[in-house]
Amino acid sequence: MSTAGFDVLGIGNAIVDILVHADDRFLVREGLEKGTMALVDAKRAGELYEKISPAVECSGGSAANTIAGLASLGARGAFIGKVCDDQLGRVFRHDIRALGVSFETPAAADGPPTATSLVLVSPDAERTMQTYLGACVELGPEDIREDQISAAAVTYLEGYLWDPPMAKAAFLKAADMAHGNDRKVSLSLSDPFCVDRHRIDFVDLVSNHVDILFANEEEIIALYRTEDFDTALQAVRGHCEVVALTRGAKGSVVLAGDEIYIVSAKPVDQLVDTTGAGDAYAAGFFFGMSQNNDLARCAHIGNIAAAEVIQHIGARPDRPLKELLEAKLGAA
Amino acid sequence: MSTAGFDVLGIGNAIVDILVHADDRFLVREGLEKGTMALVDAKRAGELYEKISPAVECSGGSAANTIAGLASLGARGAFIGKVCDDQLGRVFRHDIRALGVSFETPAAADGPPTATSLVLVSPDAERTMQTYLGACVELGPEDIREDQISAAAVTYLEGYLWDPPMAKAAFLKAADMAHGNDRKVSLSLSDPFCVDRHRIDFVDLVSNHVDILFANEEEIIALYRTEDFDTALQAVRGHCEVVALTRGAKGSVVLAGDEIYIVSAKPVDQLVDTTGAGDAYAAGFFFGMSQNNDLARCAHIGNIAAAEVIQHIGARPDRPLKELLEAKLGAA
Repeated sequence: MSTAGFDVLGIGNAIVDILVHADDRFLVREGLEKGTMALVDAKRAGELYEKISPAVECSGGSAANTIAGLASLGARGAFIGKVCDDQLGRVFRHDIRALGVSFETPAAADGPPTATSLVLVSPDAERTMQTYLGACVELGPEDIREDQISAAAVTYLEGYLWDPPMAKAAFLKAADMAHGNDRKVSLSLSDPFCVDRHRIDFVDLVSNHVDILFANEEEIIALYRTEDFDTALQAVRGHCEVVALTRGAKGSVVLAGDEIYIVSAKPVDQLVDTTGAGDAYAAGFFFGMSQNNDLARCAHIGNIAAAEVIQHIGARPDRPLKELLEAKLGAA
Repeated sequence: MSTAGFDVLGIGNAIVDILVHADDRFLVREGLEKGTMALVDAKRAGELYEKISPAVECSGGSAANTIAGLASLGARGAFIGKVCDDQLGRVFRHDIRALGVSFETPAAADGPPTATSLVLVSPDAERTMQTYLGACVELGPEDIREDQISAAAVTYLEGYLWDPPMAKAAFLKAADMAHGNDRKVSLSLSDPFCVDRHRIDFVDLVSNHVDILFANEEEIIALYRTEDFDTALQAVRGHCEVVALTRGAKGSVVLAGDEIYIVSAKPVDQLVDTTGAGDAYAAGFFFGMSQNNDLARCAHIGNIAAAEVIQHIGARPDRPLKELLEAKLGAA
C-alpha cells in the first residue's frame, strides 16, 4: 500500500455524538432497542434530548471514528462526509482535521443541521444510538472525487451510508472508482438493523464489490439469516479477500482464502462504554495492513485499539493510540 | 432558608467548555498563563481552536457549574445567564435544565454566538482557560427579575461577571434586590487575574455587599495584595458573615465571626482535571447550608463534591452527587 497517498479513505455519515448515561428503564420506557442504532427525525431527536440527563458532545460517525483511530495510530487517513456549516459541523471538522486527517468535503451552507446521534450508555457499558441524519442526507456522488479515491490504498465505506438516499449512489461511485484505480474496497456492516434494512443490497455488495469486510457476530448472522455464528462464517467465506469478524470479549475471527485466524481479546480493566469498539478495531486492523503485518497481528492491533476506546466515554481515543501501541508492542 | 423557593440563584457567564489535553510546551508556545482564565476575542479563539487536539464539548461556566452541582446534590437551584439561540446555546440550556434547574433567561436571537471556553488540561491536571465571552456580553439589568431573586435564599454571583460590560450593572442590581428582599448575597472571586482587573470594585463589594464569600488562596492574596495567605485571611476577616477559602489539596478554611474552621481535604485516587473544583466546592457548601449543617460540615460536603469533579475530565459531576454524598455520609 506504500505507493498510495492515504492508507485509508473513509466515507460515512459525519456525526456529532451526544453522550449520556441512561439506565435500562429509560430505554424500555422510550421503546429503544438496546445495543442498536435507530434513525429518528428532528422532532423525535428533540423530544428525546429533552428527556435525557446532562450530556457531553464529541465527534463521532462510524467510518469517521475509524479514520480518526487510524490517524491516531500514525497512518494517513482521509474522510468524505457531509456536515452543515454550523457550530457542530465546525466541531466535527476540527476534531478530525486535528488528527491530520484530510477532510475536504464542502459543508452544506444551508439545509438540515449537522447530524447528531444520541448515544445512551447503559450501566453495563452497552450503547444504544438514536441518530438524526441531518446534513448527511446531502452527501451525493458529486462529493466523491477521483483524485482522493485514487490516492487511497483502501476506500472504506460504512453500511450506514445506505440509509441517506443519495449517499448510496456516492457509495457505489466510490467503490467503482476505487476498483477502476486498482485500489481496495472495504465495507463495515455497521449494525444488525441496518443490515436488515438493506440486506439484499449488502449480500450483493459483499459478493461482488467488497475486498475487505468488517462485521460483528450479530451483523454477519443478520446478513445471511443463519441460526448461529459458525454457519454465517461458512456463508461469507470466499466472498471477500479478507473478512474480519468481531465477537466482543471473545475476540475476532479473520478469514482470508483458506486461512482462518482466531485472535482472542484480553479482558479490560474497566468496561465503560462500548461505543466505537468496532470502529476502533477496524482502525487497528487497517493500521496493521498499512504496515504489512500478517492478518493475525492486524487483528491483535485492532483489539488493542478497541480496548482503549471501551474504557472511557466516547467513541474516539482519549490518548494517542500510537503511544499506546508502542507501549504494548514495543518499538515497531 | 426553608421559606425560599430556591436554595441558590446563580448569576454568571453561560459558557460551553471545549475540553482538550495540552502539554506545558503548548501553553508556553502560545503565551498562556497556566492555571488562569484569560479573555480572548473571536479571532484569537478561532486561531487557538485550529491548533488544539480533538476536543470534547461540555457545559461549563463558573456559577452555572455551582448551580448544576447544587441541583445534582438534590437542592433547588436557579440560574441567570445569556446564551445565543444557537446549537451550543441549546446544549447549555439542556444540560442545566436536565438537572431540574430553573433557567429562564431568554436566549439572544442574534449577535455573538454562545460563549465558549477553551479549557486546556495539563498532564498534572491543572487547567488553563481561554474564554470567548460571545453572547455573555448581552446580559444586562433587564435580565434580573425580582420574582426570581426574592425566591432565592442566596443570590450567588461570579466575579467573572465583572468582565462583560453590562453584566456588572446586572450584578449590582441583583445584589441590591436580594438585600432588599432580606436575602443573602454571595460572591466567588473566580480567578486571580480577574481580581487584578477589578480589584478596587471587589474590595468594595466584599466590604459592603457580600454575605458569603468564596475564594481560593491566590484570589484572596490578589484581593488584598498580601505576601501570604495568613495575612490575607486576617484582612478579609469580619467583612462578610461567612468566608470560605479553598487551598486545593490542603483543604479549606472557613471564617465566621470569631470562629475559624480548618477542614482538610482527603487525597483523591486519580487527579485528572481540576476544572470546576472551586465551583463544586461552593455547590457542596451551599448544599450544606440549605440543610442547616454547621459550617465545618458545609466545607466537608464541599470537599466531597470537589473531589468528584477533579477525578474526571470536565467541570460538572459525572454522576449524581446526591448518591455520592449518601454513600459518603450515610443517610442524612
